[in-house]
Amino acid sequence: MNIIGSRLVVVAWLVCCSITWADDPLPSWNAGPAKSAIVDFVGRITTEGSPQYVVPAKRIAVFDNDGTLWPENPVPFQLAFVLDELKRLASEHPEWKTNSHIQAALAGDVAKLKEEGSEALVQLLAGTHAGITTEQFNANVRQWMKTARHPRFHRPYNRLAYQPMLELLAYLRTNGFKTFIVSGGGADFMRAWAEETYGIPPEQVIGSIGDVRFEIRDGRPVLMRRPEIDFVDDKAGKPVGIHRFIGRRPIAAFGNSDGDLQMLQWTTIGQTPSFGLLVHHTDAEREWAYDKAPSSSGKLVDALAEAPERGWIVVDMKKDWKMLFSSY
Amino acid sequence: MNIIGSRLVVVAWLVCCSITWADDPLPSWNAGPAKSAIVDFVGRITTEGSPQYVVPAKRIAVFDNDGTLWPENPVPFQLAFVLDELKRLASEHPEWKTNSHIQAALAGDVAKLKEEGSEALVQLLAGTHAGITTEQFNANVRQWMKTARHPRFHRPYNRLAYQPMLELLAYLRTNGFKTFIVSGGGADFMRAWAEETYGIPPEQVIGSIGDVRFEIRDGRPVLMRRPEIDFVDDKAGKPVGIHRFIGRRPIAAFGNSDGDLQMLQWTTIGQTPSFGLLVHHTDAEREWAYDKAPSSSGKLVDALAEAPERGWIVVDMKKDWKMLFSSY
Repeated sequence: MNIIGSRLVVVAWLVCCSITWADDPLPSWNAGPAKSAIVDFVGRITTEGSPQYVVPAKRIAVFDNDGTLWPENPVPFQLAFVLDELKRLASEHPEWKTNSHIQAALAGDVAKLKEEGSEALVQLLAGTHAGITTEQFNANVRQWMKTARHPRFHRPYNRLAYQPMLELLAYLRTNGFKTFIVSGGGADFMRAWAEETYGIPPEQVIGSIGDVRFEIRDGRPVLMRRPEIDFVDDKAGKPVGIHRFIGRRPIAAFGNSDGDLQMLQWTTIGQTPSFGLLVHHTDAEREWAYDKAPSSSGKLVDALAEAPERGWIVVDMKKDWKMLFSSY
Repeated sequence: MNIIGSRLVVVAWLVCCSITWADDPLPSWNAGPAKSAIVDFVGRITTEGSPQYVVPAKRIAVFDNDGTLWPENPVPFQLAFVLDELKRLASEHPEWKTNSHIQAALAGDVAKLKEEGSEALVQLLAGTHAGITTEQFNANVRQWMKTARHPRFHRPYNRLAYQPMLELLAYLRTNGFKTFIVSGGGADFMRAWAEETYGIPPEQVIGSIGDVRFEIRDGRPVLMRRPEIDFVDDKAGKPVGIHRFIGRRPIAAFGNSDGDLQMLQWTTIGQTPSFGLLVHHTDAEREWAYDKAPSSSGKLVDALAEAPERGWIVVDMKKDWKMLFSSY
């Protein structure tokens, strides 16, 4: 091939591939039923004149966070934050030496903490999430996110957002959707990094909520965080949280565990058009494969069983996703 | 004047007046310190390069509802709904005949209800707001809004939104603000008509919250309303509600009573740029003049006293507003 010929090939390749890229809003998704179902749904509800057209104001999409937008192993990331914070703060709290829950946490004994159940959790949260202003808590989470590294992937935790899900969020927003997080995790924990990570602003982050109290301290207004938990945004709490915070039914819901079952039911049953999707962790090499609740992951049994009857799409991470994380 | 001359006058008038209108985003506001302060603030925070420039994502404005966006006399409008609903439903509830609170309400004896205090209120809310699905409640409110008429102004209640405040909401949104309601009223009551009335979608309506429970009934998911009140969005509850639902401090807050004091403090103290405004009901002819809490209106004493020190703008409804309601 002469020079002109090879130049033409280069140009042709550039044109071809930039077209492919521009045409494919979900480049990290392999072709298959999951990707087709997403593109088909978005096409139907955005086509004016189509019987399934949905006005932009009603294009509400809700996403679980742990296991859906980022991993939840070897421990849920908010628990990793708690364990790191306890270490950072231990020297200021001599009284923790006689607290068996906190000692188990400092020793990294997650199995023991699980046995101890909610009482242990309340104490860990009190030590790391309460007794400070909302501003200070936000700063603590941001500082941790900058410095902590995931033990397997050696990156900041928020650099582990699933690339295919980031593309999906962007694709939905480009098509007029308002995207919300609806997670069992703490709302304030997520709000500290969700905007930068997912492009989701604080006012679209719904999560579990701890009590705060308004006070004027030294002439300045503050919100003091308290140890009481006001609202648990999980399981049947998810439709309740959606109602409280959004006030209307979403038309699309994305989850990965039985904690998301009721959210998918609320979004899809008896409502057309609507869309439900479950991320199934099938990739033991690139991540972890699980669905029947190993030590610290979300159990996906009931929701998986209900998926065919409801028409929910099940994403097989190993087959459906070209990559899990951006190579950045 | 010949025909060409008169045509020129008409054209000149059209040009002149459309320019005036286009130049004035707040045509129902008289010139004065309140209007100037609003326009000045919006100018400062939207001018790129200005030291007080605020990025659009942080342009959060919060509005009280009763007495700020619409009237609250002769009774708060949600109470008018309750009284009308009790009448509509009384024949289905023979057990109400022995309930003194409900009997006082059916007799329109608001003074007696006030004396009876929160116990009466809980019973009235249980009778009209609970035991039904969220969908049914929404339909009830919408039906009432269509058919009920305000006793003094003889219009549907939501046609009593203050025209100057509608212009203010639109002006802020045109300038990149996200506008929220933060009201002591019921969130679900307001969500039934706020979008149509104020252009504020359900997910931007923060109010007091009743408990709801998720259930599957006859194969369909529903949220059943319960009589318990989960959250009272008033006074020190307003900054708490803002934190729960928005997750960051607003830069502008608008209220009309001491119930809004903490919301204005949270928005403005120690935060520059920021803006606080109180609507002062000074117009006994076109509406009602009050601030020291006549029978059923919001008390404006502490917040009014604090306004000068904080730099909060006080709107004198009689002087500052050309009209209260659109003539539609």
